[in-house]
Amino acid sequence: MKTAWYFLFFILFYTRAAAQQHALVLQSDFGVKDGAVAAMKGVAFGVSPQLPVFDLTHEIPPFNIWEAAYRLQQTAPYWPAGTVFVSVIDPGVGSSRKSVVLQTRSGHYFVTPDNGTLTLVAEQLGIQAVREIDEQRNRLPGSSASYTFHGRDVYAYTGARLAAGVISFDSVGPRLADTVLRIPYRQAGFRNGIIHGNIPILDVQFGNVWTNIDAATLAQLHLQYGDEIRVRILQGQSLVFEGIMPYVTTFGAVKQGAPLAYQNSLLNLSFALNEGDFAAEHKIGSGPEWTVEIQRK
Amino acid sequence: MKTAWYFLFFILFYTRAAAQQHALVLQSDFGVKDGAVAAMKGVAFGVSPQLPVFDLTHEIPPFNIWEAAYRLQQTAPYWPAGTVFVSVIDPGVGSSRKSVVLQTRSGHYFVTPDNGTLTLVAEQLGIQAVREIDEQRNRLPGSSASYTFHGRDVYAYTGARLAAGVISFDSVGPRLADTVLRIPYRQAGFRNGIIHGNIPILDVQFGNVWTNIDAATLAQLHLQYGDEIRVRILQGQSLVFEGIMPYVTTFGAVKQGAPLAYQNSLLNLSFALNEGDFAAEHKIGSGPEWTVEIQRK
Amino acid sequence: MKTAWYFLFFILFYTRAAAQQHALVLQSDFGVKDGAVAAMKGVAFGVSPQLPVFDLTHEIPPFNIWEAAYRLQQTAPYWPAGTVFVSVIDPGVGSSRKSVVLQTRSGHYFVTPDNGTLTLVAEQLGIQAVREIDEQRNRLPGSSASYTFHGRDVYAYTGARLAAGVISFDSVGPRLADTVLRIPYRQAGFRNGIIHGNIPILDVQFGNVWTNIDAATLAQLHLQYGDEIRVRILQGQSLVFEGIMPYVTTFGAVKQGAPLAYQNSLLNLSFALNEGDFAAEHKIGSGPEWTVEIQRK
Repeated sequence: MKTAWYFLFFILFYTRAAAQQHALVLQSDFGVKDGAVAAMKGVAFGVSPQLPVFDLTHEIPPFNIWEAAYRLQQTAPYWPAGTVFVSVIDPGVGSSRKSVVLQTRSGHYFVTPDNGTLTLVAEQLGIQAVREIDEQRNRLPGSSASYTFHGRDVYAYTGARLAAGVISFDSVGPRLADTVLRIPYRQAGFRNGIIHGNIPILDVQFGNVWTNIDAATLAQLHLQYGDEIRVRILQGQSLVFEGIMPYVTTFGAVKQGAPLAYQNSLLNLSFALNEGDFAAEHKIGSGPEWTVEIQRK
Repeated sequence: MKTAWYFLFFILFYTRAAAQQHALVLQSDFGVKDGAVAAMKGVAFGVSPQLPVFDLTHEIPPFNIWEAAYRLQQTAPYWPAGTVFVSVIDPGVGSSRKSVVLQTRSGHYFVTPDNGTLTLVAEQLGIQAVREIDEQRNRLPGSSASYTFHGRDVYAYTGARLAAGVISFDSVGPRLADTVLRIPYRQAGFRNGIIHGNIPILDVQFGNVWTNIDAATLAQLHLQYGDEIRVRILQGQSLVFEGIMPYVTTFGAVKQGAPLAYQNSLLNLSFALNEGDFAAEHKIGSGPEWTVEIQRK
Repeated sequence: MKTAWYFLFFILFYTRAAAQQHALVLQSDFGVKDGAVAAMKGVAFGVSPQLPVFDLTHEIPPFNIWEAAYRLQQTAPYWPAGTVFVSVIDPGVGSSRKSVVLQTRSGHYFVTPDNGTLTLVAEQLGIQAVREIDEQRNRLPGSSASYTFHGRDVYAYTGARLAAGVISFDSVGPRLADTVLRIPYRQAGFRNGIIHGNIPILDVQFGNVWTNIDAATLAQLHLQYGDEIRVRILQGQSLVFEGIMPYVTTFGAVKQGAPLAYQNSLLNLSFALNEGDFAAEHKIGSGPEWTVEIQRK
């Protein structure tokens, strides 16, 4: 009878364990027109048929490491601790950039070439530890003759094994210093009545312009909803846009086609045209070289 | 021994329950180039790691509520009862449109702003009950400072909890009248030898033109396969196309590039060019303002 | 007590069986802007809620059977034996092309119209057996009034039932001869100091040009990394490109914008511009009519 009980507990544990794998979330600049992403998923499925596999996006513009960094920051906080992100934007494939796994203080994992992709999640979620992937141990068996598809042979394979619990974080490879390669950009800040910040990204589908100016920084202007602000947008030293718009809570607060400032879903200050495309209308781009200045009207 | 049996049944029930979650199917106009969809999926995964999550499409043209309505009608019947659809095309986000869950007589659930998206599924699948989402209870914890991403914080969160069985339909919020906001359009009908109808949608990938003329309505023309019909297509009052084509069962029944009329996969009358693009060739669009007239040649 | 043990083993088997379904991998030219793919997935989910469903791609150019053949060959080897691929590129829908399931020697299954899609996997993975789908038994109940969506009603339905173990391969339908319809193309070969081959596909996202020249064939040129080769690319009889480039292991081995030859992730000889688009720059396409000649400089 005792054996039966042990057995019962084993089954209970076994079925739960099988069910409670962490998610594997994939990001790349591969697009989905060819078989690259499907090959990565095949490798992950081969590691564990129960592994829940999701896409962050595969439409990162080719080689755009900054945008990849932004997408990780934008989405990782909405996934539970233990989630493993694989991000493959790798213009330096085959060069000496390191392949790493970042463990954040929030308990997320990021499997990627260390080429700047980790800039923002390292800041936002904190660095717990960084390990270099030991490709002797963590590489799809039989793939060593290939020089160019690390995304499939190393990153997807290692990420899947980590998410499925086949390997522990310690088994990834040797621990490195608690640092990652960072892309410099303008942090949000307030001085002399003006808030400075960066345009990290556009809301591409709707043409809204997102800044990195968070709620605490914005609070220093002591705005009420409906107050007007003066907005200047620069690319490097060139002024690309200057205008006045109200700070509101909903797009519908202004008439169709009119500009507005609002807090986006990440609670960062953003600019939009109600049912229009602010970025296209005013030729606004995004990236480390785009900055913004805000003051009360 | 009795205890052991109870325990066995508990395990059996538990593992089945874990396995038999309903599907969560997501639709939006967000595209998949940024992190919005991935954030929604992260929220859903956080609700239940076992939840099967699928995409209907995220390529609804921005703000096109009509097309969203059509896609739900086109696909919902092929999903089992209990499936939860989350549809977020929300030009009025932040305004007073209601956030609702529709339960249809077919047993499907639709979580969405009530802005017209439910027009066609309400007609086709029937309204069992409509509830307004009580955002006090059904909102991602910690998200209340954000004003603009209901798709993630309310709709995906509520849809996931409903699909996973974390909440019941009753817990969504207060019951509303058995009605949804409907977009007016031309119903299919027959009078004086002419069938009238609407072009709800194009088969965008191939350029085929789909009408809402169902098999029963079409039957009133008493067509045999191979018979020719006269087709007139109007946008509002303007005649955009007039022509004659055979009613056939397969594209290959006409020569390459020739027009044909056929029943599409929803058994509605449709027009195509064999291996060509009817819509592009004749500049045909779709939506409530596009109508069609059919008669025997 | 004995009963209890049997029951325990049943549960263990049951939960494992539920967990260990094979993957269903979908490919089509439907795109993801409409509901076609979602309807296919709804049918698959209806067959078995536990079935792991993945996309290979739905962005095959409309009617491009050759590219579909290539994508299957490119990805299938990275999925475990037992994986069921459903490929629906079907310009002849409704005509007399046969609907088949190919079982390869590698243990993969391919559910598709037999119109050339199987050309490359049949060669690469070997034909174990081919069966014609008996649509009397293997068709979504209630779908027989529809003439045009075999992808949903026959292929996805049959593929899902096969992957989920609802039917065995034998139940698909009558066995056919061990052959599939093949598209002729230039095989890789070496003669008189020149390697001949085909350009089966472009790496569309980056504009790299992939050949079918495998490592063994290439070895006959006895190249060292860094050696230069002369490359000629023809469409039919027309010379489209002629040039000299080094054979290297990484893109970074040449300066930005310079051409290079390398082995791609399938270990086939390929051409690229470092951080550029070789195909667009030199107007290179792909398919059975594109050939290539390589010799030492």
